[in-house]
Amino acid sequence: MAPSRHIRVERLDGATRRDDRDYVVEEAPLQLRARGTPVATIMRTPGDDLALVRGLLHAEGIVATPSQPDADAVELDVDPAAFAARGLLASAACGVCGRAAIADLELRARAVTADTTIAAAVLTALPAQLRAAQSVFAATGGLHAAGLFTPDGALVAAREDVGRHNAVDKLAGWALAAGLDPARHVLVLSGRAGYELVQKAIMLGVPIVASVSAPSSLAIALAERFNVALAGFVREARANLYAHGWRVRGPA
Amino acid sequence: MAPSRHIRVERLDGATRRDDRDYVVEEAPLQLRARGTPVATIMRTPGDDLALVRGLLHAEGIVATPSQPDADAVELDVDPAAFAARGLLASAACGVCGRAAIADLELRARAVTADTTIAAAVLTALPAQLRAAQSVFAATGGLHAAGLFTPDGALVAAREDVGRHNAVDKLAGWALAAGLDPARHVLVLSGRAGYELVQKAIMLGVPIVASVSAPSSLAIALAERFNVALAGFVREARANLYAHGWRVRGPA
Repeated sequence: MAPSRHIRVERLDGATRRDDRDYVVEEAPLQLRARGTPVATIMRTPGDDLALVRGLLHAEGIVATPSQPDADAVELDVDPAAFAARGLLASAACGVCGRAAIADLELRARAVTADTTIAAAVLTALPAQLRAAQSVFAATGGLHAAGLFTPDGALVAAREDVGRHNAVDKLAGWALAAGLDPARHVLVLSGRAGYELVQKAIMLGVPIVASVSAPSSLAIALAERFNVALAGFVREARANLYAHGWRVRGPA
Repeated sequence: MAPSRHIRVERLDGATRRDDRDYVVEEAPLQLRARGTPVATIMRTPGDDLALVRGLLHAEGIVATPSQPDADAVELDVDPAAFAARGLLASAACGVCGRAAIADLELRARAVTADTTIAAAVLTALPAQLRAAQSVFAATGGLHAAGLFTPDGALVAAREDVGRHNAVDKLAGWALAAGLDPARHVLVLSGRAGYELVQKAIMLGVPIVASVSAPSSLAIALAERFNVALAGFVREARANLYAHGWRVRGPA
């Protein structure tokens, strides 16, 4: 139904580590332009773009006729002010393709230079530790979590929020105020690793990101470019390594 | 760690249906103001708000000193233009509290007046049907899905996307173009039911929303106000009904 991409991956499973191929979901920006002015950028899985824009406009109460989208952008016959009024606006900085998104981040962030690594057996145990620290999830089942760990597997801090991005922002804000050195820590995410979460990790300067679920194509590209190890489906002695697998030692 | 709210719920489980109490995660808006001008509204779980704002500003590369937040807002000593440049949403329309979020929606949407109902046994089988229709999820594990069903349990359309909101927007855009009557259909979500997704359902005019996971406090308040049935943790003969349970018949 929606597109995916065939990529290289290293699979860790107990005492084995092997190269393999995998499919990851495609994530790419679609820029909305109102009479030529960029008014919003949606990170989406390509496909059904005209329906996506129609549905979004309807949900926001904006009356506008979209043109047939091309791969990167869609033109709308409406005053750009309609978007500002609804608060949707103007992520021109985000650019119109994955390459532009990376270029934008290059203006604000640097690749992680620290040579921090983690043992495979430590890495794959982190999500269970994060889950154990989620006090509100246990009661409500409704919270995303993000945690910072040392490379030895010690939990430093965890935060929960109804929004995935908020959990990472809360953790980053705490780390900045506490004077933690992010380059010596590992970020663990209770959900999927999309573009925005990996971008936040890069801005913070964390060299290793572990998610219990799937990464997107653009998240992998960002991690690759900024020297960040990206592990997905991390659970019980297993993990897939999508970028900079050298930061994960072992399993031997 | 983060707050939750004690609420009333009806629990469906096979042949039983009973009133109970449950905890749901709190979701509420935090308004960011730059020198008095509203520049963004974050839907978040209250708590750690200062760290949240610090982390968000850092991730966006905006240099600003936040004041100590109150329950609804935080003041920043920075030019509002810094936010427009980064494309963070100026969602002043979203308001500064849950009540304002509901009032904003009242300007754009009406309560669902259709008396559409669904049998409990049909409702609880829908998520498995949606999952079976997810072609790309099977390959990548990385996609959210949204589906529209008839009250008899027939799948009408399903859409997948790396973003939860996008999947619903794609489905809504298709339904609008196809001339479907949303008031006679059921929306099923593969993820959690937060404020924004329930808001999209209300804008579309769908009377019944079923999620495989947890709702937020604000999602329940919206569903209650706009006459929409909200079911959570819907799976294999079980569901929790958080609002307008009369739309779910049975199990008898």
